[in-house]
Amino acid sequence: MQKSDILENLQSIVGDDMVSSSAAELYCYSCDASQIRGVPDFVVRPSSTDEVSKIARLAFDNDIPLTPRGAGTGLAGGAVPVEGGIVLDMSSMKRILEIDLDNLLVFVECGVVQEKLNEALEPYGFFFPPDPGSSAMCTLGGLIANNGSGMRSVKYGTTRNYVMGLEVVLADGTIINTGSKTSKSVVGYSLTDLFVGSEGTLGIITRAILKIKAIPKERSVLLASFEGPELAGRAVVKVLSSGIVPSACEILDRNIIEAIKSYDPNISLPDADAILLFEVDGTENSVKEGIEMIRDACSSLASNIRAASDKKERDEIWAARRLVGAAVSRLDPLRTRVYVGEDVGVPIKELPGMLNKVNEISKEYDLPIMTYGHIGDGNLHTGMCIDVLEDGDWDKLNLVADRIHRTAISVGGTVTAEHGVGSARSEYLGLELGKGLNVMILIKNALDPKGILNPGKMGV
Amino acid sequence: MQKSDILENLQSIVGDDMVSSSAAELYCYSCDASQIRGVPDFVVRPSSTDEVSKIARLAFDNDIPLTPRGAGTGLAGGAVPVEGGIVLDMSSMKRILEIDLDNLLVFVECGVVQEKLNEALEPYGFFFPPDPGSSAMCTLGGLIANNGSGMRSVKYGTTRNYVMGLEVVLADGTIINTGSKTSKSVVGYSLTDLFVGSEGTLGIITRAILKIKAIPKERSVLLASFEGPELAGRAVVKVLSSGIVPSACEILDRNIIEAIKSYDPNISLPDADAILLFEVDGTENSVKEGIEMIRDACSSLASNIRAASDKKERDEIWAARRLVGAAVSRLDPLRTRVYVGEDVGVPIKELPGMLNKVNEISKEYDLPIMTYGHIGDGNLHTGMCIDVLEDGDWDKLNLVADRIHRTAISVGGTVTAEHGVGSARSEYLGLELGKGLNVMILIKNALDPKGILNPGKMGV
Repeated sequence: MQKSDILENLQSIVGDDMVSSSAAELYCYSCDASQIRGVPDFVVRPSSTDEVSKIARLAFDNDIPLTPRGAGTGLAGGAVPVEGGIVLDMSSMKRILEIDLDNLLVFVECGVVQEKLNEALEPYGFFFPPDPGSSAMCTLGGLIANNGSGMRSVKYGTTRNYVMGLEVVLADGTIINTGSKTSKSVVGYSLTDLFVGSEGTLGIITRAILKIKAIPKERSVLLASFEGPELAGRAVVKVLSSGIVPSACEILDRNIIEAIKSYDPNISLPDADAILLFEVDGTENSVKEGIEMIRDACSSLASNIRAASDKKERDEIWAARRLVGAAVSRLDPLRTRVYVGEDVGVPIKELPGMLNKVNEISKEYDLPIMTYGHIGDGNLHTGMCIDVLEDGDWDKLNLVADRIHRTAISVGGTVTAEHGVGSARSEYLGLELGKGLNVMILIKNALDPKGILNPGKMGV
Repeated sequence: MQKSDILENLQSIVGDDMVSSSAAELYCYSCDASQIRGVPDFVVRPSSTDEVSKIARLAFDNDIPLTPRGAGTGLAGGAVPVEGGIVLDMSSMKRILEIDLDNLLVFVECGVVQEKLNEALEPYGFFFPPDPGSSAMCTLGGLIANNGSGMRSVKYGTTRNYVMGLEVVLADGTIINTGSKTSKSVVGYSLTDLFVGSEGTLGIITRAILKIKAIPKERSVLLASFEGPELAGRAVVKVLSSGIVPSACEILDRNIIEAIKSYDPNISLPDADAILLFEVDGTENSVKEGIEMIRDACSSLASNIRAASDKKERDEIWAARRLVGAAVSRLDPLRTRVYVGEDVGVPIKELPGMLNKVNEISKEYDLPIMTYGHIGDGNLHTGMCIDVLEDGDWDKLNLVADRIHRTAISVGGTVTAEHGVGSARSEYLGLELGKGLNVMILIKNALDPKGILNPGKMGV
């Protein structure tokens, strides 16, 4: 079929206004928040599952790549159409279809922005726990397709733990439903879990049934300073293996602390090699108990420990943590933060060693690495800034990222704990998964025999 | 290959003592705890993953059905070789390879009995939460393959939530590893979740990395009585939608209460149409708070509420709950408890209606139904007894089970919340899963193209 015929067909499915092939618009859809680029041939904004199904059928019959896109906040190129074709902008499907408090669930379209869901739930005293840094923008469909998480996952788990069921459009346009509103079932393979985290390579997620939780009554924060990141790593091992479950457990290293302070000198953070931020939520009594248990566990390792005395101080500490992304890129006006090699995860026990290794690699290549992240999950964000106009800087960055990735894998870790594989990290899948990658490819070929769904992603 | 050649090959892999084709031994492996029967041609007891791999390769090359078996405690025929071939008795692979408290995990062989793992963890103050009724006998491999759960899942989730990684032997003998010791990773499709609950139809689970939890310091029990099971169902909705998370939430109906009392007259249970048992665990303060919140939530619906005053009373109440299985079969000495139609689950909100429906069906067919189970998950065990020598009784039972299954599906529920599909419930998969069943079949064919892995199960 000619390109003009494809365009006409797409227009007849979604209406003229909801499809575009203008260069300016295509350019807007050629990137996400990573360095990956790829220009689509068409951008289509479906309004219903039925439209998505028809578009998929058209793509299937004409071997056109089909890349679903939420808000484009991804850090691995997952939503970038690296082989061209159709980008499906799902952001118009943004209805919260049902808030069902009796069953503790919501039923949503995939284009709902994460924060909008929590705004809708807040008056009822409930919330949807996954909290990626992009929660003000990202869509639930993107969150599910990437199995996103964030600061709270050390207690609340990842998005996967909240997906009870999905509506998915398969490569040939078939619409299936996985899971249900029943909290426990062992009927059939867990197709829900297969689609969660599959980054649009197996099907297009159009609707979801999601679990919600009651908002905890209280929360409190403890801030512990350490002489050397390794000590901080050891404190995390000690706290978690004591059976304490904080609702957040974050690390900021010396470089990040300095970046935050230079970004906003009013922020009061201790001068230390590393800071751990612990949050505990629950009832008033359990929060008090939890904070004291963490204080005890850290006491022999930390140089200083202080609990936030009130809500104001607690909010200030979290505001500092949230500044990290912006602060990193402000450290040197000539350099730009790039998201490469930034999301490794390691077993908790390996954290002290991994933090040391990152410092060694930084020194060896003379490239500052700012380490922060969800250390309670073993997830370290290693932030690096380069002059993006200098090829030499890119070469160095890629070498450093490669070393970080291989070091994480060598201690039983992962190249991406939460940001996704996309195109950015697919080269490591064989190394990390071994023969498991072959099983992935078997499944990919079975569900998408023509390879039209988000091609060039996840190594399949 | 001749049968005698297969036997010789198997002997050369595992040794003469670890393979059998004697009629007496084959008979022992022809059943599990369900009504399903099927006699194997060989029973093999491998001692290592390498042996499992070689056996799979032999089976693959010769198109021999291969049915893995843990302790044979399943209630759906999952471990019964309905098409003959080789039964793989995995119970010899029973080493706990590593208890890693720093990473809050254990690394085990699949033949470890669930209770043995908890006995090994108890001195360290940790436990593995899933707790099926068969925990004193069932193996971890069986538990994982069935995604088993039990009373604690209302708080702690199912086995799936504790499996971090698996070693799996595929149909052709290939050994793969899924997941890792890292708590969070988004690298690749979640193959771990695909194998969990796949009942041996996609691969043979040989080893597992499992999460463990700290044993809660306190636990307490509250017992609420209701005039009519529907009121009990409404109380469950009210408690859970208040955001309270009990560590168990069980129902016993009038028939079950009478059965328990006739089994052991010393047991003190209230005379009621239905009883709810709530357990709360955690710290001393949080347990007190939780019990009082449940008391408040139930107060307008229950005819009587009492908290266990001490550990002795608490243990007595749970002992009564544990007697259910034995008590049901003692109700009428001429009748036998059969596990058919016994494991539906429904959305929490549908519980009151479902409890009413079960009573109506019982009256319509004049077949007593004893209802108990994990009502906090929407999971109802509907226990029925028949004269197993009477064809008419079987016919009636099957009609009643069919009505219960279809009623559960019609309200968005499931035909099996935790016991498994096996051969017993595979006829309902199309009805419950719709086109999702086709996706299961695509995956099954991709991973097991010759269909040798546990054939005749799960509708694939």
